[in-house]
Amino acid sequence: MSSLEAETEPNSLPTQRSQIKRLPQRGEYDRQTIHQILDEGLVCHVGFVVEAQPFVIPTAYGRVGDRLYIHGSPASRMLRTLKESVEVCVTVTLLDGLVLARSAFHHSMNYRSVVIFGAATLVQDAEEKLQALKAFTEHVIPGSWSTVRLPTHQEVAGTLVLSLPLTEASAKMRTGAPVDDEADYALPIWAGELPLRLTAIAPVPDPRLSPGIELPAYVQNYTRSHPTELH
Amino acid sequence: MSSLEAETEPNSLPTQRSQIKRLPQRGEYDRQTIHQILDEGLVCHVGFVVEAQPFVIPTAYGRVGDRLYIHGSPASRMLRTLKESVEVCVTVTLLDGLVLARSAFHHSMNYRSVVIFGAATLVQDAEEKLQALKAFTEHVIPGSWSTVRLPTHQEVAGTLVLSLPLTEASAKMRTGAPVDDEADYALPIWAGELPLRLTAIAPVPDPRLSPGIELPAYVQNYTRSHPTELH
Repeated sequence: MSSLEAETEPNSLPTQRSQIKRLPQRGEYDRQTIHQILDEGLVCHVGFVVEAQPFVIPTAYGRVGDRLYIHGSPASRMLRTLKESVEVCVTVTLLDGLVLARSAFHHSMNYRSVVIFGAATLVQDAEEKLQALKAFTEHVIPGSWSTVRLPTHQEVAGTLVLSLPLTEASAKMRTGAPVDDEADYALPIWAGELPLRLTAIAPVPDPRLSPGIELPAYVQNYTRSHPTELH
Repeated sequence: MSSLEAETEPNSLPTQRSQIKRLPQRGEYDRQTIHQILDEGLVCHVGFVVEAQPFVIPTAYGRVGDRLYIHGSPASRMLRTLKESVEVCVTVTLLDGLVLARSAFHHSMNYRSVVIFGAATLVQDAEEKLQALKAFTEHVIPGSWSTVRLPTHQEVAGTLVLSLPLTEASAKMRTGAPVDDEADYALPIWAGELPLRLTAIAPVPDPRLSPGIELPAYVQNYTRSHPTELH
């Protein structure tokens, strides 16, 4: 059972933060991989520490270049206490499939994940915050920003946004077939991958939706891009 | 933009660990909700602290009663250092849908999540560890344990498994339609929910699969149960 083990990267992350290469020293391939995973994901898990206690909170995010903007509401109490910056670990995980081996021990999952370390800071500038809100919305539902009612000054002011540079970021993934013990390949047991996709089903209109408003294309054609479906 | 905010629970978790009610003091409804979310999810995010630095690592898990078993491989270095127990925060998040409001500010997500705090300990007992491995496998792909080649003593011994009681666990969720400002309901903008589901697509047989092995029912009929699809 080696689920989500880093089979493509033998040196796992947890206690080797210092060994993570910084983005500028890595190839364009790494940067593109990291961006692609972040852009396909919808929810990140933000880890932070308060009085030696770890917290892991799911929240929305958006990317602008080499910067991740994190919706700050779940961590607002902590932020109000700290005022300045906070050391975080932000992880985005995409589950691509179940890897079914002939042995239970070699069951695994195909996944792509990004782990980012750094100091998250509160965005104070109203214009940068508005751009972050745009990034949140366009990240979740591309094409909608030009249609919906945009945030007022008061709404922008009332939203907590954290900014985190993608300097210390790392991608990990597992793809492909199971890897069984050589002797097990002869067993009469099905093995392979069961791919999983996050799929939109039929939209549910708001019960208070005014009559005559058509479903916009950005809802009707909604999809999260996945590498195997890209051209 | 109130994505993943705790609209159903105004007092958010992060800095209020002490206020989380303990499971025995809560109703059976809470316990069932927590179990259901954990059983439907596939990946948890484990948060822990090493030298004041937070880490958030995705990994596989399984539930046995009021105990969560966590696959320990991603945290193995840390565990080898600590030897005994480690304070963790384990979060499981299910994304149920995008909530599209008439205003960008009120966009949100429908989700269910469980946050568990506690001291995770290494499972030493071989029989308990085997039961945890069974829970991992049956959690990910129900019905497969009786078909696959079971773990050997050596494989059980070589697997790190963490045990975490579900004593200090809390569920949060958001469901239903967007909540817009009253004045915005008159706007000619579509609003509603776009439900998302994690769906299996066509299985990909292992290229080394022996001829004549049929696809088992537990793969062919694979689905993650979702409350609205339960009877």
